[in-house]
Amino acid sequence: MTSQSFQIRADRLRTDIETTGAFGAVDASEGRGRTVLTGSTANRNARDRLVKRFEEAGLEVRVDAVGNIAGRWVPPSADPTAAPVAVGSHLDSVPRGGIFDGPLGVYAGLEAVRAMQDAARTPERPIEVVSFTEEEGVRFADGLLGSSVASGHRSVEDALTLTDDDGVTLSDALADIGYRGDGHLDASEWDAWLELHVEQSTRLEDAGVPVGVVTTIAGVTHGEVTVTGSANHAGSTPMAERTDALTAASEFVLSLEAAVTADERPETLVGTVGQLDVEPGAVNVIPGAVTASLDVRDTDAAVIEDVIDGVRAELDRLEADRGVITDLHRDFTAAPTDMSERLRDTVHAAADRLGIDTLDLHSGAFHDTMYVADVTDAALLFAPSRDGISHSPREWTDWDDCATATAVLAETLATLSGA
Amino acid sequence: MTSQSFQIRADRLRTDIETTGAFGAVDASEGRGRTVLTGSTANRNARDRLVKRFEEAGLEVRVDAVGNIAGRWVPPSADPTAAPVAVGSHLDSVPRGGIFDGPLGVYAGLEAVRAMQDAARTPERPIEVVSFTEEEGVRFADGLLGSSVASGHRSVEDALTLTDDDGVTLSDALADIGYRGDGHLDASEWDAWLELHVEQSTRLEDAGVPVGVVTTIAGVTHGEVTVTGSANHAGSTPMAERTDALTAASEFVLSLEAAVTADERPETLVGTVGQLDVEPGAVNVIPGAVTASLDVRDTDAAVIEDVIDGVRAELDRLEADRGVITDLHRDFTAAPTDMSERLRDTVHAAADRLGIDTLDLHSGAFHDTMYVADVTDAALLFAPSRDGISHSPREWTDWDDCATATAVLAETLATLSGA
Repeated sequence: MTSQSFQIRADRLRTDIETTGAFGAVDASEGRGRTVLTGSTANRNARDRLVKRFEEAGLEVRVDAVGNIAGRWVPPSADPTAAPVAVGSHLDSVPRGGIFDGPLGVYAGLEAVRAMQDAARTPERPIEVVSFTEEEGVRFADGLLGSSVASGHRSVEDALTLTDDDGVTLSDALADIGYRGDGHLDASEWDAWLELHVEQSTRLEDAGVPVGVVTTIAGVTHGEVTVTGSANHAGSTPMAERTDALTAASEFVLSLEAAVTADERPETLVGTVGQLDVEPGAVNVIPGAVTASLDVRDTDAAVIEDVIDGVRAELDRLEADRGVITDLHRDFTAAPTDMSERLRDTVHAAADRLGIDTLDLHSGAFHDTMYVADVTDAALLFAPSRDGISHSPREWTDWDDCATATAVLAETLATLSGA
Repeated sequence: MTSQSFQIRADRLRTDIETTGAFGAVDASEGRGRTVLTGSTANRNARDRLVKRFEEAGLEVRVDAVGNIAGRWVPPSADPTAAPVAVGSHLDSVPRGGIFDGPLGVYAGLEAVRAMQDAARTPERPIEVVSFTEEEGVRFADGLLGSSVASGHRSVEDALTLTDDDGVTLSDALADIGYRGDGHLDASEWDAWLELHVEQSTRLEDAGVPVGVVTTIAGVTHGEVTVTGSANHAGSTPMAERTDALTAASEFVLSLEAAVTADERPETLVGTVGQLDVEPGAVNVIPGAVTASLDVRDTDAAVIEDVIDGVRAELDRLEADRGVITDLHRDFTAAPTDMSERLRDTVHAAADRLGIDTLDLHSGAFHDTMYVADVTDAALLFAPSRDGISHSPREWTDWDDCATATAVLAETLATLSGA
């Protein structure tokens, strides 16, 4: 069959995304936002709707122990024992997040299946559409929870005993909404994995290209820097006798910015201090201690390590020059994850057949694909984000762009499944 | 009479301070600390003990509407209608404060009276020993509460309706401990005011001098700086596309430090950012907004204004260079307050008679004397603070130094009262 016989229905996809976006909708004059935390009523409603749509499309629905939902299509043409091709994303959101981040990838996967069904395509492999639990990490753990279990990075037991800020376990939160299932999805059993996500950056918009093909998901180091000085009276302590933790920490913040923006650094490199807490935090008391977060990302692990070395050197300099005591604690490091060359080639060929331009780019943000790629071939597609905005009611991807990216996803899925 | 006939009893003063320090005592291996907030049980106990000691010394006790306590000594030698000489400080503390900050000045005043009584000195003016309410400003308002009312800077009504973080009024808090009295002390009726306080700095210690004579209490500007950028994803937003509120705020923090430590600036000048809050404050989100406090002090108001002008210029530069939006809001400005030349001369002469060295210095911190000096002649004496530490269980002033400073205070008081 040719690609022309195989039509995405943009209206159906849009209805899916808009209806899903109404669960947990927030009042936002600036756009269309939602808050869908794992285990909430909005989360249950979004899940229930997905399950219903899966069933309407004849997919076998499975919910695993950590609430991951898979809808499996095993048409008569497929060998039910063959390794399936899987596709999906997540339904949860950050507080006051957008309606595309997550749902686009889940429903694009389902729309691809429905379009193949409409066109009577005959895949040789089963196709599995997946919604991973707690990608955002707002209520439980740090993110990518469902995919961490499906990829064997975390045990079911460890995941279920995670607690939110109120001490509620993931197990109870899922049971509460009826999504505490059995066993766990095993991504290593998949022949391939595809995810479509909004870009959350402006590279596609700037280039005027509708589809991004991710080369590498950037690695990251998260850490905590502490700077300890001496709290003292802001009035009676002369400048020369101070050991101000905040002035020292300010030098650290600026040194990180300078280090990652230096001419010789790649454009993929970013470094952020997103949290900074001052103790004791009174207008008339010299800061005695500062705790600052550290987030460094690049597609090359060696570059991240070089930046961290630079941070250590700067902290040593601050100890020598300012008399503060400093510490750098690394909380979490993830290596850069290259996407599958086989799958990227398949995506490019699919887009070429459809006459759709693509742009190769890296992902600075994490996605469930990062973990899945450790156990099977994986690819990540991006749709353009207006003004690069995400995690906000202002997040927007034009419906035409949603459909175009979904068409490339569907064409790739058809190829991979032998349809 | 000569000064030799007029002996401070160091043991009595020490007992007063140590006993008072036991009210609200905190567990602190590093020293002797206390927490005495206005209206607390510890505050009542400290007040009750002072009233009892006043009565034992034959002082007429008066409690005004805002809880200021005055003990008036009107010996037969004194004209009861003459303007009294007043002396004192405060009994409240910061959380985990020291035992000298406040109580030293109150009990040094009482000890001066007792020593005059012991020596049968015959003052011509009444002497009033005063403990002001809520000097520290921890629970109500911003500090110097009792003296602000006694000096007419704040009405009794305004003071009594002040609320703490739980919505409790000062009126109720004082009534609760039995110290909601009537009327108000009127500092303008005093012929002179003396306060002895711990230095909270190292100038006396560095100079090896036991008594400081304050020339000027530094003026201050308190303000709030806001820096607004754009919150965005720390992974997917390239460095070149960021408007990071924290990197901009870090430049502001360092520019303030540089401005107040420049070579041409006086050593009396200090500038502090003691509070800094980052929004939204997540490890993986670029800071969208920062709110920072500003505290600038000097003995010359023009110098403070020049620093504030520099801050405004720096904020303008940050708007131009970094695309942030900034604002500087000035919350509070107090002009520098010169101490009375007549009283400073009297203190110097008294110290000379006793053969005690003094050092002229400014006060970077506020004291109740700042407000009192607006309505009558006032002087402020300092006793050395070990390592300059205050507002901490590590606060310490040697007992010998307490006695030495109290002797100078008493000799000054004797002169001013015509004893």
